[in-house]
Amino acid sequence: MAAGEPLVAVTCTAPVNIAVVKYWGKRDEELVLPINSSLSVTLHQDQLKATTTAAISRDFTSDRLWLNGKEEDAGQPRLQACLREIRRLARKRRSADDGEALPPSLSYKVHVASVNNFPTAAGLASSAAGYACLAYTLARVYGVEGELSEVARRGSGSACRSLYGGFVEWQMGERPDGRDSVARQLAPESHWPELRVLVLVVNAERKPTGSTAGMRASVETSALLRFRAESVVPARMAEMARCIRERDFPGFGQLTMRDSNQFHATCLDTFPPLCYLNDTSRRVIRLVHCFNAHHGQTKVAYTFDAGPNAVVFALEDAVDEFVAAVRHSFPPEPPGGEFLKGLPVRPVLLSDELRVALALDPAPGGIRHVIVTQVGPGPQVLDDSHLHLLGPDGLPKPAA
Amino acid sequence: MAAGEPLVAVTCTAPVNIAVVKYWGKRDEELVLPINSSLSVTLHQDQLKATTTAAISRDFTSDRLWLNGKEEDAGQPRLQACLREIRRLARKRRSADDGEALPPSLSYKVHVASVNNFPTAAGLASSAAGYACLAYTLARVYGVEGELSEVARRGSGSACRSLYGGFVEWQMGERPDGRDSVARQLAPESHWPELRVLVLVVNAERKPTGSTAGMRASVETSALLRFRAESVVPARMAEMARCIRERDFPGFGQLTMRDSNQFHATCLDTFPPLCYLNDTSRRVIRLVHCFNAHHGQTKVAYTFDAGPNAVVFALEDAVDEFVAAVRHSFPPEPPGGEFLKGLPVRPVLLSDELRVALALDPAPGGIRHVIVTQVGPGPQVLDDSHLHLLGPDGLPKPAA
Repeated sequence: MAAGEPLVAVTCTAPVNIAVVKYWGKRDEELVLPINSSLSVTLHQDQLKATTTAAISRDFTSDRLWLNGKEEDAGQPRLQACLREIRRLARKRRSADDGEALPPSLSYKVHVASVNNFPTAAGLASSAAGYACLAYTLARVYGVEGELSEVARRGSGSACRSLYGGFVEWQMGERPDGRDSVARQLAPESHWPELRVLVLVVNAERKPTGSTAGMRASVETSALLRFRAESVVPARMAEMARCIRERDFPGFGQLTMRDSNQFHATCLDTFPPLCYLNDTSRRVIRLVHCFNAHHGQTKVAYTFDAGPNAVVFALEDAVDEFVAAVRHSFPPEPPGGEFLKGLPVRPVLLSDELRVALALDPAPGGIRHVIVTQVGPGPQVLDDSHLHLLGPDGLPKPAA
Repeated sequence: MAAGEPLVAVTCTAPVNIAVVKYWGKRDEELVLPINSSLSVTLHQDQLKATTTAAISRDFTSDRLWLNGKEEDAGQPRLQACLREIRRLARKRRSADDGEALPPSLSYKVHVASVNNFPTAAGLASSAAGYACLAYTLARVYGVEGELSEVARRGSGSACRSLYGGFVEWQMGERPDGRDSVARQLAPESHWPELRVLVLVVNAERKPTGSTAGMRASVETSALLRFRAESVVPARMAEMARCIRERDFPGFGQLTMRDSNQFHATCLDTFPPLCYLNDTSRRVIRLVHCFNAHHGQTKVAYTFDAGPNAVVFALEDAVDEFVAAVRHSFPPEPPGGEFLKGLPVRPVLLSDELRVALALDPAPGGIRHVIVTQVGPGPQVLDDSHLHLLGPDGLPKPAA
């Protein structure tokens, strides 16, 4: 690229989100329109985030993509759908600006590099953070403002919920063209400062069915999923919003658990069945119910996406004891390894009563580690060009 | 009992049944009336049966009960409900016989002894065979003829389906008094002679929630269960009856698997969730789907009740190869133990293609043993008094 055009490069970060009213099933595969609304909590980027640099230049000869340092096929349909969508929005915006000529940059090829600060093996919805970050970054490259749900959604449905911090709902919408299928923030991250989120990373033996194929099978074969989407979710959306508004942890926790269980029920009702929970997941479920029964109230609540890892919500004052209970039920292996990551946890001894109440035969090594985090903000622009993942030549910088 | 009245004693046997359209949930706990109809296959008593002796005598001073040789509380509500119901039917019959006086035997106390020829640990619905056997035996003791569904049902709902051989439906009925909630035979055991049934007994670590408590929790908390009972089961009853009538194994097998999965889905939708399947159950599910995919058609079909054991249906010509596939996926431990019980199975080598298709990491010892059986007849009276479990003194005979 010697003596070439200067490159336009932007770097942003975006968060992971975890749904408490689950999205499962599309009514339109092409436009990525869901069969029901969903609601999520945005996790803090101090612990879990995607970072993306997008660059355009007249000198680029093709679109290129690097994920976690490895070049991938930039022709893949999801990436191309995001690019088409952002360019469409850019054109629309310019043509609205009284007759201004379209800038040539709209036809430039793009280079994208993206990294996660957590292993894909964590089974977290890395695609949601990744595509939210891509949409947000491309919007800044092309000077697009306003609603980005449609761009992010084309990459991965739940990515539109990672465009905002705090508590976010994705309204399913009604229009066939999907223009009203958008994410919006219900409450910012500052709304419920005591809320903590623990990611329990399970040692899993096998890769589960991907969620795109899984959803399609569920929509085609599960009568329970249809019923859930039409007759159960609407009331749950309203009730979950109320629990969040009123910071009602027991209500929030119970509904979160019930909705996770119902989502996995529809997976099991799929044919052939989708089994995302394993024996360790079920031990976590028992542990949580046992912990709550011991306390006589809902102090902690689990939710599971399309994999065996648990995400557990708790208020700040319950975290130390719950982490001790997890350690008791899943003695870390190897004992010396880093079991806890993220926000600090005070070591506490379990009371004898709780120890008896848990009464689970311990499952050593069942949980690989626990990431302690909290509710966090939406995507951020990184102004420092030293943080770009692509160098002035438009290629990934060598890892420092 | 020296010089006492002669004792009236009757001994009968009754079969286990396995539902292919599942019963889960009561609309009336007292009368044991279900929220949906169900359909089952009666298993052959050569492999699995309950044997019960019931005796009455003027000299007995209290009701007594022995299960598998151990005395149990005869005051337990289910046993007493069966006794009340059979005596009611006996009185009704006598009063119908133009004014005949009620025989004094109706007020005699009863002694009952019952044994299963399979371990309770097999997790099979031993209570269904047991209460069907009790109802059938008491009917002969008291000279009651005709419909015994109500008697058996009071002991355990699914027991009414063990009153018949072959293929049996339990019609849920509509009447509040339950008189129309009865079992009837759809087809005798001779209807589909090629059908085989394999019970895969799983090495389970813990005792699951009992079905009575489980059903109650599901009825109270699962919206999916209500929907299933009202909107899914009626069509499935008709479709399953058609598959059986036409001996359509692929149709029968697919619907059996889907209905088992949907039942477990409603368990997971219960709060707190009921998880009856474990990782071994899920390996069996994958194995079956993989086996069928390899053959390009439904050759085998699983179903699971309220526990981790699998019951697998197959036509005779698929049994040898499927058993070899089970052995391959779950190498028996200890290798010398008796892995196969029941009908003979020819050892066959798995083809390389099937071996590759299975591609499951083997789980040694996951399956304790496999019982190979077939469709069988309903309850039988044993005429030989040497087979009574109670001696002339009304007490259990010492084990020979």
